[in-house]
Amino acid sequence: MKKIITGVGSYLIEQGLLDKTGELILSQTNAQRAMVVSDENVFRLYGERLLNALSEAGIIAESIVFPAGENSKCLQNFEKILFKLSEENFSRSDTLIALGGGVIGDLGGFAASCFKRGMTLIQIPASLLAMVDSSLGGKTGVNLQRAKNQIGSFYEPVLTICDTDLLRSLPEREFKCGMGEIIKYAVLFDRELFYTLLRGNFDLSQVIEKCAQYKTSIVKEDKFDRGRRQLLNLGHTVGHAIEVLSDFEISHGESVTTGLCVITRAAVEKGICGKETLTELSEMLNKYGLTEYTGFSVNDVYDVVLKDKKISGNELTLIVPECIGKCKMIKIQLTQLKDFLKAGGLK
Amino acid sequence: MKKIITGVGSYLIEQGLLDKTGELILSQTNAQRAMVVSDENVFRLYGERLLNALSEAGIIAESIVFPAGENSKCLQNFEKILFKLSEENFSRSDTLIALGGGVIGDLGGFAASCFKRGMTLIQIPASLLAMVDSSLGGKTGVNLQRAKNQIGSFYEPVLTICDTDLLRSLPEREFKCGMGEIIKYAVLFDRELFYTLLRGNFDLSQVIEKCAQYKTSIVKEDKFDRGRRQLLNLGHTVGHAIEVLSDFEISHGESVTTGLCVITRAAVEKGICGKETLTELSEMLNKYGLTEYTGFSVNDVYDVVLKDKKISGNELTLIVPECIGKCKMIKIQLTQLKDFLKAGGLK
Repeated sequence: MKKIITGVGSYLIEQGLLDKTGELILSQTNAQRAMVVSDENVFRLYGERLLNALSEAGIIAESIVFPAGENSKCLQNFEKILFKLSEENFSRSDTLIALGGGVIGDLGGFAASCFKRGMTLIQIPASLLAMVDSSLGGKTGVNLQRAKNQIGSFYEPVLTICDTDLLRSLPEREFKCGMGEIIKYAVLFDRELFYTLLRGNFDLSQVIEKCAQYKTSIVKEDKFDRGRRQLLNLGHTVGHAIEVLSDFEISHGESVTTGLCVITRAAVEKGICGKETLTELSEMLNKYGLTEYTGFSVNDVYDVVLKDKKISGNELTLIVPECIGKCKMIKIQLTQLKDFLKAGGLK
Repeated sequence: MKKIITGVGSYLIEQGLLDKTGELILSQTNAQRAMVVSDENVFRLYGERLLNALSEAGIIAESIVFPAGENSKCLQNFEKILFKLSEENFSRSDTLIALGGGVIGDLGGFAASCFKRGMTLIQIPASLLAMVDSSLGGKTGVNLQRAKNQIGSFYEPVLTICDTDLLRSLPEREFKCGMGEIIKYAVLFDRELFYTLLRGNFDLSQVIEKCAQYKTSIVKEDKFDRGRRQLLNLGHTVGHAIEVLSDFEISHGESVTTGLCVITRAAVEKGICGKETLTELSEMLNKYGLTEYTGFSVNDVYDVVLKDKKISGNELTLIVPECIGKCKMIKIQLTQLKDFLKAGGLK
């Protein structure tokens, strides 16, 4: 078992960890009860095994299960979890276990952070995207109408249990989404990883571990996303807009890579990075079946971006590649944004 | 102007500060806009002055005003604030100003902590209780049905602006409530303050400042309420139950002093403190028109206490006086709680 020390706990990665969940929790907390938050797809596959693992360790478990999909990440479901925790008299030393992908991790994490001002949180990521990104670093949240992650908190899990066996059941499209975030890490930090992914012959567990290490180290530097952590938003400003405008038909990982492509195209136009970066990125997206262009208009994207968390006053922080493996933050005026989007190929 | 440095900002106290709010905010933040959250009573008295002060400093302000009273501290109003912030495209560097007593401070603070994972928060306490207690230390929250502060966060204001002029309009009963928390500080930390209050001849501003210093210093030691900060819950376990059982007819400060009396009575019975402590406390409560006994039953109080945040597993942390100026934490089993409540005079 590999272990990465995070801000307040640890990230464990190995095949078969799910069945050891109970003992792993008891080694780090004094939880007597657990509320498992999950979605229908994941719970159908792994719910029973998790409940058994908890019961074997003497942890009394209950569960609350939501429909799969981004629409479950809403204030109503946040409240449903809170009502259930309160009705059942959970204490703040009991644990909430988020078993699922990014949606469940964000929703469950947000509820855990607010119940009695913060109860013990465990993440069990069940998608590639959650394993490399959302189960780490403590960003939680729900969407508000058309605004992605508009409401939320910074609240780190004491334990992230990454059982790579769970990927066996992952649908092809979910795999693609996760690759989106992995490509993002490569563009940000790791030229070598980029070419490894491009060759396509790699050990996925090792790649997950490497991404988790990048994320952990940047979050330790800047927990509250005021400085260097904003680099991780590469592709996300336009990406979130695409997600929202598609009514979440286009998933997070798919949107982020399209956003990354838009921003790289703009960076080439503006002389921030060379053409070869766009060519290499384009090759990568084709390899993994990801999309380079979006049909949404400059004006539509602009309106959604106005809700972005990275706006301060009339300024927006954008992350742009200089080359594969190196990106930088630039601040632009909101008035310049449309021009930037046009340079990125939007109509 | 006196200034106390808090965890992430400062607490300013002086007569007439309300009219300087705009410049004070600009000296500490780069907020361009402000959302004022208030209640009808306070906003009627001070809303216009605050909006003028903001406008003079060039800060564009909007407001959202709720009915006065504990029932406003609910998830629905939390959501109303979030929707308004989102609709109006507030950014996280803009500010939310909570102008009011404890209810508004807790509700507004919770919304500020969750909007875009945390926007700038300013507290302007308009009640004695808020000035000495709730506007400091970053506990925010709303009630869930019969459970007080069941949902919330730890989120400190960057600025608490305490204008003691605002107390001039304070109703007699609100003054009594604030005295409840001040008496609590005296019993916890300050025998001399206790006798000053008992004599009744004191400078209220100085007393507020002293209490703010006690609170600030203990919060710095233990921000997340896992250790010494729990001392501040003296009187609150039974107090919260009385508040809830009375449907908030009996206010927070009134309930807390009754709770303090119940716990002191139990402490005398259990040999933890001497009879004279109860006699002195009784004299103090009579002086300020506060109530020593509650008519609610052991069973009713017990059922509400089950939702208490200070329960961990089957254990509950209680704060009990040893003498005036010195208290200690004890852990009791939930099974012992009814016995304790009976010793405290409940039927």
